Amino acid sequence: MAGCQIDKSVIRPIRFFNGKAQMLDQRLLPAEEVWLNYNTYEEVAEAIRSMVVRGAPAIGVAAAIGVWFGVRDIETESTEEFYAEMEKICDVLAATRPTAVNLFWALERMKRFAHANLDRTVLELKIGLEYEALAITQEDEKLCIQLGKQGEGLIPDGARVLTHCNAGALATAGYGTALGVIRAAVDAGKKISVLADETRPFNQGSRLTAWELKKDNIPVTLICDNMAGYLMSKGEIDCVIVGADRIAANGDVANKIGTYTVAVLAKAHKIPFYVAAPMSTVDLSLSDGSLIPIEERDAREITHLKDIQLAPEGIEVRNPAFDVTPNELVTAIITERGVAEGNYQQELAALANKR
Amino acid sequence: MAGCQIDKSVIRPIRFFNGKAQMLDQRLLPAEEVWLNYNTYEEVAEAIRSMVVRGAPAIGVAAAIGVWFGVRDIETESTEEFYAEMEKICDVLAATRPTAVNLFWALERMKRFAHANLDRTVLELKIGLEYEALAITQEDEKLCIQLGKQGEGLIPDGARVLTHCNAGALATAGYGTALGVIRAAVDAGKKISVLADETRPFNQGSRLTAWELKKDNIPVTLICDNMAGYLMSKGEIDCVIVGADRIAANGDVANKIGTYTVAVLAKAHKIPFYVAAPMSTVDLSLSDGSLIPIEERDAREITHLKDIQLAPEGIEVRNPAFDVTPNELVTAIITERGVAEGNYQQELAALANKR
Repeated sequence: MAGCQIDKSVIRPIRFFNGKAQMLDQRLLPAEEVWLNYNTYEEVAEAIRSMVVRGAPAIGVAAAIGVWFGVRDIETESTEEFYAEMEKICDVLAATRPTAVNLFWALERMKRFAHANLDRTVLELKIGLEYEALAITQEDEKLCIQLGKQGEGLIPDGARVLTHCNAGALATAGYGTALGVIRAAVDAGKKISVLADETRPFNQGSRLTAWELKKDNIPVTLICDNMAGYLMSKGEIDCVIVGADRIAANGDVANKIGTYTVAVLAKAHKIPFYVAAPMSTVDLSLSDGSLIPIEERDAREITHLKDIQLAPEGIEVRNPAFDVTPNELVTAIITERGVAEGNYQQELAALANKR
Repeated sequence: MAGCQIDKSVIRPIRFFNGKAQMLDQRLLPAEEVWLNYNTYEEVAEAIRSMVVRGAPAIGVAAAIGVWFGVRDIETESTEEFYAEMEKICDVLAATRPTAVNLFWALERMKRFAHANLDRTVLELKIGLEYEALAITQEDEKLCIQLGKQGEGLIPDGARVLTHCNAGALATAGYGTALGVIRAAVDAGKKISVLADETRPFNQGSRLTAWELKKDNIPVTLICDNMAGYLMSKGEIDCVIVGADRIAANGDVANKIGTYTVAVLAKAHKIPFYVAAPMSTVDLSLSDGSLIPIEERDAREITHLKDIQLAPEGIEVRNPAFDVTPNELVTAIITERGVAEGNYQQELAALANKR
């Protein structure tokens, strides 16, 4: 399938069919395009944990779908009992991955909907929660398109844009955040080329970003994570744009491991460093990035690639999946409601109150 | 074999047997320890090109052995004809890889020996060149040990030391440059732990550095290249030490791709950044690092791991194998003759004249 031309809007990592969900197994891209079926909340939790689906906004969408699947199997007529069972389901989904706040945001939104409608019947709650999950999905793609429009003005015509990890259609319900801004710049008629960090150890850059940009015919060149500095020193990168997994109230940004390094390099080379994320990624409850929990994942992600052994048996490994970029390294944060630059504390709070 | 305890000095990537050489196939480590046989200069050239043997000093040693193998098959009684044939052999070996200057240094040394002895017989030249190749090999290990002693004082007791790529026993005739300094610090009774960047795309860190440090029971923790910045920001790295492929007269350092990024990160976190290399790596003929040729290698090194496809078919790739770290990011250059700090232009020239 690689290299075939399809319509841009068709790249979506989650789709629905007969009350079930299918997710594109992102662990197998780009070699294979396999859609897996999901019908229970436990299955969805495992999909998030094992990174069949990944990317902060997409994890939020998947969690909402997980709640929908979970609550439809609750057998009670009591809305109080229903809500108590629903909370247990949310707890299972919440325990899958710690860093991306969109997961918790989506679970809270589902719970808030249920809590506000406890005077309805259980059947009405179930139907309402199905609609809420589908609304979260559809809104996510729409707000990515809005976010793209908010940010594309920052990307000059002819820009060679570095991105890290995958903040694309595959990381959202569709269209993408960082790659959404790039898509919007291309749609505005600009000639844009993308440099994609391969993003070890899960290779979201080489496997996912390269795959979806190639499908959209946006010029993309793959590099290893350790090459961005060299290319910046050669004047071959004009700006950086990345997504986010959680943004603290002061504008500190948790994102895929390696993002901080790219931000340090961008500052050293006086290159703008942009973060693109929906407001659901902004966590105003955390004053700064030091409070964001950083997931450490399994050593085997680094020591092996499938069955190929890359390191000696029993070697010690550190595998933090995210890092925190302090706000002073961030040129602007692009959201669907507008662009924050400078005083993130004030501006993010203002965007959160904007409608 | 992984994990077995052997004597330190036993880790050598090249060994001799009956006038032939064997090289440890570094492409297969750590999963397999396979020794390949070498008997002709063409085979040795291919071993350098295909990275059976790698690391600037080891490439120099291999090149000298290649010349030895090449000249012993020259059929002439005329030393002038012999020398002309020898130059052709050197040209083949010189064309294997462009960045590491030790390759050219070793070829020049072999030619200089022959040129100074053109009044001898061809047989005497052949015997002399065999001794010269073996001398280059033995000297390389000895000077690594000297280099280690010169540098170990820079590494404090308890230090958590980051290294990039493999500048170890496997990159030299034995003992190593950057890892030689670490070995010397350990031998001096210091408690040292090493963080090893995996070093994409060839994974010298995960496959080679982790392997040889584990063999020597020196604590080593593997990380992806994009994690060093995060660990520095957490205060978990005390200093950096790397090798070099070529050092210009002003102290600019060409080394494995990603070294520059580590140096920028080290400066941003006020962490010392040391370079360890023999004087044969210093190229006083180049005024600065911009003149060092940077090898670009095949895309497949990044898009595939063995037969596993990591990127879409036909994707554009940049694969520079080295980068240049400007002298202002280098805290000190450690050589077997002493440590240069500060005015590299003067100090490297002084070390070059020292005996």
